[in-house]
Amino acid sequence: MVVVMAPGATPAEVQAVVDLVRAAGGDAFVSRGVSRTIVGLVGDVADFDALNLGSRSGVLRVMRVSVPYKLVSREHHPARSVIRVGGVPIGPGTLSVIAGPCAVETPEQTLEAALMARAAGASMLRGGAFKPRTSPYSYQGLGEAGLRILADVRAETGLPVVTEVIDPGSVEMVASYADMLQIGARNMQNFALLQAVGAIDRPVLLKRGFSATVEEWLSAAEYIAQRGNLDIVLCERGIRTFETATRNTLDISAVPVAQQLSHLPVIVDPSHSGGRRDLVLPLTRAAVAAGADGLIIDVHPRPRTALCDGDQALTDADLRELADAVTGLAPLMGRVLAEPVQPAVAA
Amino acid sequence: MVVVMAPGATPAEVQAVVDLVRAAGGDAFVSRGVSRTIVGLVGDVADFDALNLGSRSGVLRVMRVSVPYKLVSREHHPARSVIRVGGVPIGPGTLSVIAGPCAVETPEQTLEAALMARAAGASMLRGGAFKPRTSPYSYQGLGEAGLRILADVRAETGLPVVTEVIDPGSVEMVASYADMLQIGARNMQNFALLQAVGAIDRPVLLKRGFSATVEEWLSAAEYIAQRGNLDIVLCERGIRTFETATRNTLDISAVPVAQQLSHLPVIVDPSHSGGRRDLVLPLTRAAVAAGADGLIIDVHPRPRTALCDGDQALTDADLRELADAVTGLAPLMGRVLAEPVQPAVAA
Amino acid sequence: MVVVMAPGATPAEVQAVVDLVRAAGGDAFVSRGVSRTIVGLVGDVADFDALNLGSRSGVLRVMRVSVPYKLVSREHHPARSVIRVGGVPIGPGTLSVIAGPCAVETPEQTLEAALMARAAGASMLRGGAFKPRTSPYSYQGLGEAGLRILADVRAETGLPVVTEVIDPGSVEMVASYADMLQIGARNMQNFALLQAVGAIDRPVLLKRGFSATVEEWLSAAEYIAQRGNLDIVLCERGIRTFETATRNTLDISAVPVAQQLSHLPVIVDPSHSGGRRDLVLPLTRAAVAAGADGLIIDVHPRPRTALCDGDQALTDADLRELADAVTGLAPLMGRVLAEPVQPAVAA
Amino acid sequence: MVVVMAPGATPAEVQAVVDLVRAAGGDAFVSRGVSRTIVGLVGDVADFDALNLGSRSGVLRVMRVSVPYKLVSREHHPARSVIRVGGVPIGPGTLSVIAGPCAVETPEQTLEAALMARAAGASMLRGGAFKPRTSPYSYQGLGEAGLRILADVRAETGLPVVTEVIDPGSVEMVASYADMLQIGARNMQNFALLQAVGAIDRPVLLKRGFSATVEEWLSAAEYIAQRGNLDIVLCERGIRTFETATRNTLDISAVPVAQQLSHLPVIVDPSHSGGRRDLVLPLTRAAVAAGADGLIIDVHPRPRTALCDGDQALTDADLRELADAVTGLAPLMGRVLAEPVQPAVAA
Repeated sequence: MVVVMAPGATPAEVQAVVDLVRAAGGDAFVSRGVSRTIVGLVGDVADFDALNLGSRSGVLRVMRVSVPYKLVSREHHPARSVIRVGGVPIGPGTLSVIAGPCAVETPEQTLEAALMARAAGASMLRGGAFKPRTSPYSYQGLGEAGLRILADVRAETGLPVVTEVIDPGSVEMVASYADMLQIGARNMQNFALLQAVGAIDRPVLLKRGFSATVEEWLSAAEYIAQRGNLDIVLCERGIRTFETATRNTLDISAVPVAQQLSHLPVIVDPSHSGGRRDLVLPLTRAAVAAGADGLIIDVHPRPRTALCDGDQALTDADLRELADAVTGLAPLMGRVLAEPVQPAVAA
Repeated sequence: MVVVMAPGATPAEVQAVVDLVRAAGGDAFVSRGVSRTIVGLVGDVADFDALNLGSRSGVLRVMRVSVPYKLVSREHHPARSVIRVGGVPIGPGTLSVIAGPCAVETPEQTLEAALMARAAGASMLRGGAFKPRTSPYSYQGLGEAGLRILADVRAETGLPVVTEVIDPGSVEMVASYADMLQIGARNMQNFALLQAVGAIDRPVLLKRGFSATVEEWLSAAEYIAQRGNLDIVLCERGIRTFETATRNTLDISAVPVAQQLSHLPVIVDPSHSGGRRDLVLPLTRAAVAAGADGLIIDVHPRPRTALCDGDQALTDADLRELADAVTGLAPLMGRVLAEPVQPAVAA
Repeated sequence: MVVVMAPGATPAEVQAVVDLVRAAGGDAFVSRGVSRTIVGLVGDVADFDALNLGSRSGVLRVMRVSVPYKLVSREHHPARSVIRVGGVPIGPGTLSVIAGPCAVETPEQTLEAALMARAAGASMLRGGAFKPRTSPYSYQGLGEAGLRILADVRAETGLPVVTEVIDPGSVEMVASYADMLQIGARNMQNFALLQAVGAIDRPVLLKRGFSATVEEWLSAAEYIAQRGNLDIVLCERGIRTFETATRNTLDISAVPVAQQLSHLPVIVDPSHSGGRRDLVLPLTRAAVAAGADGLIIDVHPRPRTALCDGDQALTDADLRELADAVTGLAPLMGRVLAEPVQPAVAA
Repeated sequence: MVVVMAPGATPAEVQAVVDLVRAAGGDAFVSRGVSRTIVGLVGDVADFDALNLGSRSGVLRVMRVSVPYKLVSREHHPARSVIRVGGVPIGPGTLSVIAGPCAVETPEQTLEAALMARAAGASMLRGGAFKPRTSPYSYQGLGEAGLRILADVRAETGLPVVTEVIDPGSVEMVASYADMLQIGARNMQNFALLQAVGAIDRPVLLKRGFSATVEEWLSAAEYIAQRGNLDIVLCERGIRTFETATRNTLDISAVPVAQQLSHLPVIVDPSHSGGRRDLVLPLTRAAVAAGADGLIIDVHPRPRTALCDGDQALTDADLRELADAVTGLAPLMGRVLAEPVQPAVAA
């Protein structure tokens, strides 16, 4: 940490800061400039936080120079991690595609979507049984019945299941059906939920909150890691800006930025970022080209009657283009398309 | 809803939209313009949502013209509501101040802060026992022990207690100590938590998420209302923007905007908005002058050693200025300062 | 400036930074922490900028600790300034209201608006002759003919004239009619224009760009000041955020923040911030209560036929409320309402 | 346009809107819903703007359904355009790279950068002689002397020159040296400047303002087109968001969105978007994969001593990677790398 003293700070005020830091077990070095004096702190940041140095007399502001997360940082673990979901790897070297319907509606729709997903290059199946919706009057999902459908479709297709969990109280139940638990954007700072998924033995897909900085996203991952679960995959899904032509603004830079700061894999959701079917393919290509470790994509056999986000689901011809895009771009990025461990039996 | 057809849409495509709407039980009127044809829908929006009209051939876009909430809207309930917390009113006619420490640390600190709050014009006590913090390494609160301290201080001072709840599983326990349950900004779209507080008999203080639109904020309130609890107070606490001089940007316009759209009371948190002690008073004055129904303010007897947000807590002399500001401005706004029902016995 | 070294930076890399700074005539102090080494620089920041320290081997990032403006800073000039416009003061102690039509349309409309403005407490007349509009198909203003109308209305009412200039080539011409030159939000970083108004002898009203930080706003003011013109008034008029209920989000905190960083007066535009007539009064009250030195407000005798921004112009009854608000709040803020030097003769 | 009536609007209020629209030469169709009545307008939007319908009694809000630009829209001109700069095409079918130093410093530095640019696949040279800088104390460019250097380097290398113009008064002078005029992000709504470049016979590179919506960007292009110059290339260069890890947030979705709404070519500036050298390559790849028609990239022979934005300039090894990325990705996107018309003689 660096403490910047106010222009008129007295030598006594500077000394008081130094004394406080030393009393807390740290050390402090003073640089006196023409218009500013700065004090560099050496030691454990956590100890200095409680000093509320920003409130001290003569202090202009306190700047943090280190990051607030450890276990998920590359500083702590330089090699990039590979996370396995039902045997399918996500991480450097592979391009891993998760696809499926936004919401599980019926066994037929889910199976059909899974086969479409598989044909388009997906090696994991997504599908929502618990849907966090902005309005209480929107479709809220099938609940546990939806999870049973997903498990049946996994048995039939061999595709591991990724599904969202929205309540700490149902984490164990959802984990009994799913291969990977998804934390949605709106729950990125639902710390009780992060701690609950941190305490069980299932990989977690952590979506970035739509107004979270990369640093806050990694701090949220740290909540999970701190409870013992380091099988975390980060998912960029668009941030909120003033632009209204797209539902959210895909922050494509977040892919290399997060990969540089954290050893965790980073995937992209091109469907929810733009919220428009016509943007899914260009954003998919951009994501792979920017170095994403994978993708999560909405597909639906009949988007016009989908109960959730039908306007962004890929279908039919789109899927061949998707398959072409990922198979064409993956080798250029030094990656191979990830495959499911068990071959799809129903295809 | 209004469906805007693409420039080259054919008459058959327009007719297809009309037919779908009529089949869903609604009606549709077509206006053919020079470069655009628009179709106005009449009927229940919920029925039309499932038509995914935005995906239909020839459709450019679909625009919603009504709001997605009902129970909390003024359209549904024109008179502005008064909510009572331990007998203290929040709503038109009064200016209601909630104050206290960001985090409950000790019985002494909490009592001292409560007496400071009372002296500054507060009629309710705030204090956090469960603290949702961005970093897992920051102070997380005393938990139930903190709630017991709050209840003891209420007994001593007569101030009703407002405290945060962060997990659906602990709503009942927290409600057994508190007079009002606070939903923090990060949990504004934690729908499981909203439904849990909607199902019990305690007023709820719903903070606006720092990237939530006013419409999303009111939709979150609707989640609570829909479960039967209409005792909701909205709290504006700053939104996230590009500006870095302040922690968040207080959206002062949100006060009149939310009061016009919803019958619920709207209060302001000037402490967390700016995140700076020197901004608390100007933002407090601005909030009252903009028509806020109340305020929630951080105070601490010794901010320099506060375990949470010490840099923004008011103390000593600040509190006299605060008292002057609220007593000076309230009458100009046609309000009286709310008083606790039981007089403070320890003062 | 502070240079933060990367975690694995070698002693030679640290020394290289120190050597560069010393070679540039500065000094550098090294603080070695547990996970980070930081180097504090002492000397003239401008000299260090050209070193591109951020590109040096082993450097993680460079943090600036001082502000990039001087002449407009309070550090350089601690007392808050009073600027005079046609004799009317703007600054501490007074509350100065500028009002008038968004666009000058006819002599009658302008005179009528000026008399309305005067009755509502305004001591200066605003009116646009050159209108920067987002679309080239919107009304662009009367040009010099509009300036002549403004000068005539000034002669009749005694109100000094504030009007916008949009092109460096017409600054002198506009200044020959106007008492104060307005730089609009879209031109806040039109540096050629800033330098042109910096070179003449007329006060300048500098609106904040709708995506400018306070620091960038003050840096824009510095461009004017650096050319010799320190008669600058800052105007907050709303920033761009994700919220769509209002045209822009009034950043009410910017008033105290800018007043703390700069000695220049700060006024607020409640009309353009919200873009809605019903928000003008609550935002006016909030601005005065937050400590603004003045206001600039749209009024129009017949808003329904206004050629520009009619939906936000105050008229009739609104103006009495406005007069009540400013006369009621000013004394509470230790201010008196500014008066024109010459009494209105046509009133 | 669509007029949404307030819930309690009377039939007379609805009729008044219809009458106004018809009196203005348009037509109006009324759809009466359960809770809302909407009026669809048919005719010329420009005629209706002056009616200020939003201010009429009983009107809740007015929604525009058509775009405010014409000449640059695909609706008006469905085929995507190819713009030629000194003979080099920018548009569908080619991938066109502009590269060079942020600021022209010396003849040697400029020539060296041009040769580096050429070797990396660039077919046009960028270089700034007039630099709009946030602070008046930053390097402001060589002015006309810099333009002469650029012209000399063009003579030597055959690369057409792209350079920024910042003042309507110097447009002709800059155009006498340059093959393409750049309008920087801060000047995107400097309408006097847009009109000036619209009146001359030189292609224009229009950067998106960092807080401009795509619609505002295209409206700015319309200002140029309306004066007769349709040789416009759009450049996405990052928008302003809350994220602080990057200088701006590259809005990668803006590439397909702008290409769908406008026939003009769209290129990307990966250097200024991120403001970090390590992000230039991933963002370059993302831009090409998203379908960009070209790139504009900072290169510098000695970034550590660059007078402007040295921290983001590519050099040496980076350039080989850049060349590999563009030559590898272009064919996948159905594009060939654009070549200069005259071969580089000094290479």
